Amino acid sequence: MSPSTYEKYKHFIITFPYEYVAQVEINRPQKLNAFLEVMWVELGAIFRQISTDPNARVVILTGAGDRAFTSGLDVQAASQSGALAEKQTSSDGARTAVQLRRHIQDFQNDITSIEKCEKPVIAVLHGISYGLAIDVTLACDVRICARNTRFSVREVDIGLAADIGTLSRLPAANVPMSWAKDVCLTARDFSAEEALRVGFVSGVYDSKAAALGKALEMGQLIALKSPVAVQTTKEIMNFSRDHSVQDGLNYVANVNMAMLQTQDVKDAMLAGMQKRKPQFSKL
Amino acid sequence: MSPSTYEKYKHFIITFPYEYVAQVEINRPQKLNAFLEVMWVELGAIFRQISTDPNARVVILTGAGDRAFTSGLDVQAASQSGALAEKQTSSDGARTAVQLRRHIQDFQNDITSIEKCEKPVIAVLHGISYGLAIDVTLACDVRICARNTRFSVREVDIGLAADIGTLSRLPAANVPMSWAKDVCLTARDFSAEEALRVGFVSGVYDSKAAALGKALEMGQLIALKSPVAVQTTKEIMNFSRDHSVQDGLNYVANVNMAMLQTQDVKDAMLAGMQKRKPQFSKL
Amino acid sequence: MSPSTYEKYKHFIITFPYEYVAQVEINRPQKLNAFLEVMWVELGAIFRQISTDPNARVVILTGAGDRAFTSGLDVQAASQSGALAEKQTSSDGARTAVQLRRHIQDFQNDITSIEKCEKPVIAVLHGISYGLAIDVTLACDVRICARNTRFSVREVDIGLAADIGTLSRLPAANVPMSWAKDVCLTARDFSAEEALRVGFVSGVYDSKAAALGKALEMGQLIALKSPVAVQTTKEIMNFSRDHSVQDGLNYVANVNMAMLQTQDVKDAMLAGMQKRKPQFSKL
Amino acid sequence: MSPSTYEKYKHFIITFPYEYVAQVEINRPQKLNAFLEVMWVELGAIFRQISTDPNARVVILTGAGDRAFTSGLDVQAASQSGALAEKQTSSDGARTAVQLRRHIQDFQNDITSIEKCEKPVIAVLHGISYGLAIDVTLACDVRICARNTRFSVREVDIGLAADIGTLSRLPAANVPMSWAKDVCLTARDFSAEEALRVGFVSGVYDSKAAALGKALEMGQLIALKSPVAVQTTKEIMNFSRDHSVQDGLNYVANVNMAMLQTQDVKDAMLAGMQKRKPQFSKL
Amino acid sequence: MSPSTYEKYKHFIITFPYEYVAQVEINRPQKLNAFLEVMWVELGAIFRQISTDPNARVVILTGAGDRAFTSGLDVQAASQSGALAEKQTSSDGARTAVQLRRHIQDFQNDITSIEKCEKPVIAVLHGISYGLAIDVTLACDVRICARNTRFSVREVDIGLAADIGTLSRLPAANVPMSWAKDVCLTARDFSAEEALRVGFVSGVYDSKAAALGKALEMGQLIALKSPVAVQTTKEIMNFSRDHSVQDGLNYVANVNMAMLQTQDVKDAMLAGMQKRKPQFSKL
Amino acid sequence: MSPSTYEKYKHFIITFPYEYVAQVEINRPQKLNAFLEVMWVELGAIFRQISTDPNARVVILTGAGDRAFTSGLDVQAASQSGALAEKQTSSDGARTAVQLRRHIQDFQNDITSIEKCEKPVIAVLHGISYGLAIDVTLACDVRICARNTRFSVREVDIGLAADIGTLSRLPAANVPMSWAKDVCLTARDFSAEEALRVGFVSGVYDSKAAALGKALEMGQLIALKSPVAVQTTKEIMNFSRDHSVQDGLNYVANVNMAMLQTQDVKDAMLAGMQKRKPQFSKL
Repeated sequence: MSPSTYEKYKHFIITFPYEYVAQVEINRPQKLNAFLEVMWVELGAIFRQISTDPNARVVILTGAGDRAFTSGLDVQAASQSGALAEKQTSSDGARTAVQLRRHIQDFQNDITSIEKCEKPVIAVLHGISYGLAIDVTLACDVRICARNTRFSVREVDIGLAADIGTLSRLPAANVPMSWAKDVCLTARDFSAEEALRVGFVSGVYDSKAAALGKALEMGQLIALKSPVAVQTTKEIMNFSRDHSVQDGLNYVANVNMAMLQTQDVKDAMLAGMQKRKPQFSKL
Repeated sequence: MSPSTYEKYKHFIITFPYEYVAQVEINRPQKLNAFLEVMWVELGAIFRQISTDPNARVVILTGAGDRAFTSGLDVQAASQSGALAEKQTSSDGARTAVQLRRHIQDFQNDITSIEKCEKPVIAVLHGISYGLAIDVTLACDVRICARNTRFSVREVDIGLAADIGTLSRLPAANVPMSWAKDVCLTARDFSAEEALRVGFVSGVYDSKAAALGKALEMGQLIALKSPVAVQTTKEIMNFSRDHSVQDGLNYVANVNMAMLQTQDVKDAMLAGMQKRKPQFSKL
Repeated sequence: MSPSTYEKYKHFIITFPYEYVAQVEINRPQKLNAFLEVMWVELGAIFRQISTDPNARVVILTGAGDRAFTSGLDVQAASQSGALAEKQTSSDGARTAVQLRRHIQDFQNDITSIEKCEKPVIAVLHGISYGLAIDVTLACDVRICARNTRFSVREVDIGLAADIGTLSRLPAANVPMSWAKDVCLTARDFSAEEALRVGFVSGVYDSKAAALGKALEMGQLIALKSPVAVQTTKEIMNFSRDHSVQDGLNYVANVNMAMLQTQDVKDAMLAGMQKRKPQFSKL
Repeated sequence: MSPSTYEKYKHFIITFPYEYVAQVEINRPQKLNAFLEVMWVELGAIFRQISTDPNARVVILTGAGDRAFTSGLDVQAASQSGALAEKQTSSDGARTAVQLRRHIQDFQNDITSIEKCEKPVIAVLHGISYGLAIDVTLACDVRICARNTRFSVREVDIGLAADIGTLSRLPAANVPMSWAKDVCLTARDFSAEEALRVGFVSGVYDSKAAALGKALEMGQLIALKSPVAVQTTKEIMNFSRDHSVQDGLNYVANVNMAMLQTQDVKDAMLAGMQKRKPQFSKL
Repeated sequence: MSPSTYEKYKHFIITFPYEYVAQVEINRPQKLNAFLEVMWVELGAIFRQISTDPNARVVILTGAGDRAFTSGLDVQAASQSGALAEKQTSSDGARTAVQLRRHIQDFQNDITSIEKCEKPVIAVLHGISYGLAIDVTLACDVRICARNTRFSVREVDIGLAADIGTLSRLPAANVPMSWAKDVCLTARDFSAEEALRVGFVSGVYDSKAAALGKALEMGQLIALKSPVAVQTTKEIMNFSRDHSVQDGLNYVANVNMAMLQTQDVKDAMLAGMQKRKPQFSKL
Repeated sequence: MSPSTYEKYKHFIITFPYEYVAQVEINRPQKLNAFLEVMWVELGAIFRQISTDPNARVVILTGAGDRAFTSGLDVQAASQSGALAEKQTSSDGARTAVQLRRHIQDFQNDITSIEKCEKPVIAVLHGISYGLAIDVTLACDVRICARNTRFSVREVDIGLAADIGTLSRLPAANVPMSWAKDVCLTARDFSAEEALRVGFVSGVYDSKAAALGKALEMGQLIALKSPVAVQTTKEIMNFSRDHSVQDGLNYVANVNMAMLQTQDVKDAMLAGMQKRKPQFSKL
């Protein structure tokens, strides 16, 4: 599967700046990368494709342009079509509810495809990063950002409890709950420094370029390692987040009884002793 | 329901400093707001009442006087009556145990009524904040404090594993476990700065007055937003804390299929585009 | 049970620097305290023994020598014998998998014996603290370290997803997930300061000696308290980490209906009022 | 607490046909014991009172008259007032939803008070046993019935998914799921014999009198046993139903470390060896 | 959406024998309806389509021909291509494992689409019903069968632990565990009578025609009821099977706060009092 | 490992009546196989040994003599030494509780070793089967019995809530809860026929000899199958009992990605097509 198979997507640019390192760029900069419904459908499709693409071992998620990672939902578009605007298909409260739920769950599943992607995903935020910026990057594995990033869990300001993942994933990101409720209930902005202090991001860099540079460096580092070890690590940590420690240990034992049967361990140990870089086959 | 319905409580003063903003003040300052059994019974009743009071959209919890939010359990009183002192009603270990458990669970339920209150609760701590101060404020949504606050998980010093919520809710507050065990096992004091660094509080202010001012400002901000959005946000985050991310997402979809049928979304979106403050009906 | 019963262990030195304070030292400094299989078997046995030893009320875990708490698995030894190296007992993938799983689970159980030890365990890290250093100390209750400590979740560098506890316990230690995935996926070093900032350790001290001094001070403080209160506190916090808040509260009520029937509460309350140190019987 | 304290209830008759054996009779036979809202509020209060009444060690739940245990919700009354009928307090879908949820949860809590009652509850069904008859008796511990009983999970016939417990508790009663879904989706009647075959009831007797006689016999038998043993047995089985086997075993160990400190064990063992009936103190 | 949209499927015939009643027939009778990989892919697509088709309110699943519902996996085909046969894409045990897991999970998801279908599904078994017959029908809501049905959990006879659902769903079907392990470990045949006795099926009829007749009758009965009530009932029972009773009650309250806002309740109650059949709008 | 390694056990006779079929006989017939503490310690050791013994593929558990599988705990012995009798090591209620809990958990772990044994275990009950007979056989996979078996969950008669597994495992055995609570609360006897009707046993045979004959036949059948398939089947079903269906499916996928890499599948499929018995290597 070559990068050209990614040319079909309209609102995202997918490139491979280094071997095994994919970059997915939200590409609607003239509208601050605001999300239309068609965009999260594409986003889901992209990450499902990358998940089993042996040419990708790690993914960087970025937003095009200088001003915003994304300003979130395109509210104007949403007020004209889609779940929030739609002429209700039924005057019956229950039937309207069922239609809304189908819609919400499709939307959630598209974002969750980032979390389910077998390859680790590093989000690089910058500038305006509102609403969906939080939902989407909470489904990523690592978040870093530029110093100028302005974050906000915006939804409460349009009468909504954020429903595409923020309220479920923010507590699971191990940021302090007192802070998490503060920003979700007030919809106030918070800065890169504050995001770092509470652990929402794990690195702040001087500019978008510097943050992206760091992500690419991290991506290259990960791409050089055994893909068996890397992908299994992501998978186990996602499982452990949602289960007891004992269930996590059992899971590890079951997964590793297969994964330890890889040549990669022997190759990595030998390379380590010989102080050279090992080569691993695709996955 | 008007504020006057709150006059019946003896150890707490309930006021509404701003529209929709309730303030609950622990009012036993001559004893450092130390808790008698009658007080946690009152506390439970107050928060059950506020939970469905349409005049309250957010609650501030404070302690009267300059010296203490609360020094915790009134040990002297407890040593004379109540579960820790009581002439055992039975000489039989099992029967005594059953009596003790009923007592502990009633106590727990009173504190849990803060967590179950449908409206968000902001705790403002200052001065001495020992033992029950931690149990009680961990059931609140947001914790901020004055710089002079002295915290301590005191119970181990009177031969007890803290049993009214601290040991269950501190890990769930997403503070680092190594630190949490340190303060619970040693019963040592910790400062406002330390509390901020680990995320136990999300803000430290120069004085009690400044902290309260900040809480009221936050309260007014929340009170202006859609109560549907605000209360649903609290509810979903509490659910998510205790369930897997996938269960959380399902919960969100089920709750929002009803909540999105509110006029508040349209009002908020329109007001947003017109740059004016929306008005929302009571809840 | 006297300290002399601990002399049988070959790779660990067990001492009691103060009454009720046990110290367990990893003792293979000439190899940077690297772990052989026999060592984790011993480690499991030691903590199972301490768990019910009434002379121990708290445990300090340290590494001998100046250079390393432990450099982790002895890779050279592991490449010659043991699960990673072994001539597979069967050419059948499934049978090999079953053998590997038995091996992994035995290994996990030995480390978990630290978590299950009824007495609190304080880990003191210094110098090189790689791989198993993380797995082992995540099973401890409190982690502090010397300023010169170099940490690394090393396993991905030898083709492995860390399988002895790090990936299950790091999310449960309430450190930020973005950071946790960064260090697990890249295997990069991190410093004592970084470890403190994210909450992996709860204290950094100028030298190994200073850190050990602090641990002993904390140990003595804990040893003076009611062992009923201390051990119940550890137990409840471990339970709460893995369960919902409501399940935690129920657990507390069930445990404390027995534990409150201790003389220690009355002794502690009386001593507190009389401003003197209480004495508690063994447990 | 004497039986006279139970005279305040209007729609239920509470008697003590034998020492320690309480009988609660639904008493609206002229309307087939159909439930009004005030009745489930009373039902909740009754079982909360019995839960800690030392004169009750076991409870029998029956319906007055020959024709029905209960025909379920009084639909005519419900269509005129209450949640299903009420002029919506708000034209806003979300606000109406919140009102409905508060109402449903109050209703559920009243039924759940039977399950939470510390004393075992034996339901004796006869004649028409529709809708709420299933919800209510699924919260009991043991169900037996007269041969003429006609059961039906009726709710789907009035446009409702049964929301007061049937759909949650029927799967947990360990009846075959294929059968459970059949009767819930079709709202068809089923007989006493069918109920016995699938395990919904554990005994069928020739008449209401015979079934009640059997329940009283069972009640007397239970009343003679150690109340510590009996109440702990109910509690552990309810816990185990909702948790893993390992969590259940831990729960048992925690509860029994207190409960085994009862004189009842020694008394029961001695009485057993001496072939006489032991006497136990109240609980 | 008309039935003609279902003509694209090659191995299944989809008809609507009555209004709102869909019938899905496995159609490979010349091979005893044995499953090829393409067939479960089709099966998944069919049930995902029906799930939101407003013309379907209930589904009947049957097998074409007199001899078999299905003999299970087409072993001969499977030995030549697919996961069990495939020339391993890699000589590396871990990489082969990852390929196998992706394959198993796709297969599982196709079967699970029956369980996730919003409309209830009634399975009608007859004749040979081996292996996948059990996996597939355990994902249905109700199972009935002809007297001549021969069941078997066949997988252990081809060296496999049944991996497409039987081992996970059989315990959740509330059949006795001792029996369930017997048939899974021995792969022995069991009869319709035995299946009824343990509750695996909830009805046995004299012939395939009689069983299908019963299913159609049940289907028509369900199709006449409020689709809001019916679909919510299926959904809540599936949720409850996997969660605690308290979580189930909360789920019910959240779903019904929307679903009770349907016109269907009023229509059904009125029709009930007027003894006529109500008409409900599509869903 | 040859059968002779099993000669060290004093209260159990271990034989191999057929290749790969182990039989464990409780051997204290002169005391109705009543259990002393030393016996459950032996029982735990035996099943831990069998778990990894490649010569055992299935285990039959029986009781020596004609009169009883086991009459349960040896009450007379228990009243003189052990947890129920012991002169409390401390006059402190909490310290006594901790001792009791350690004792209960050791006892539970010994019984749980049957459940954790990797090989399936078939229990054959006969005659008196009281108390521990239920606890022990609920940890087995399949239960069958002789027609003369008299069962009783006896513990409540000696003032105890059964604490070695019955109350946790009976609900998980998928027997109807109404019946389960009946027999646990009344301690009444129940017959083989009743046990079969509710699914506690899955077969009743005319005599102990006939039941044992059936078990051996079943054992031989299982012993001939792929041990990979058989042992994985037991493991997955035990896991599924305690987890959601979706967690079960994930577990299956993780286990089978290793287990499908066995030669056994190819051997079994080929043998099946050639209508001959396959041979499998040890596990």
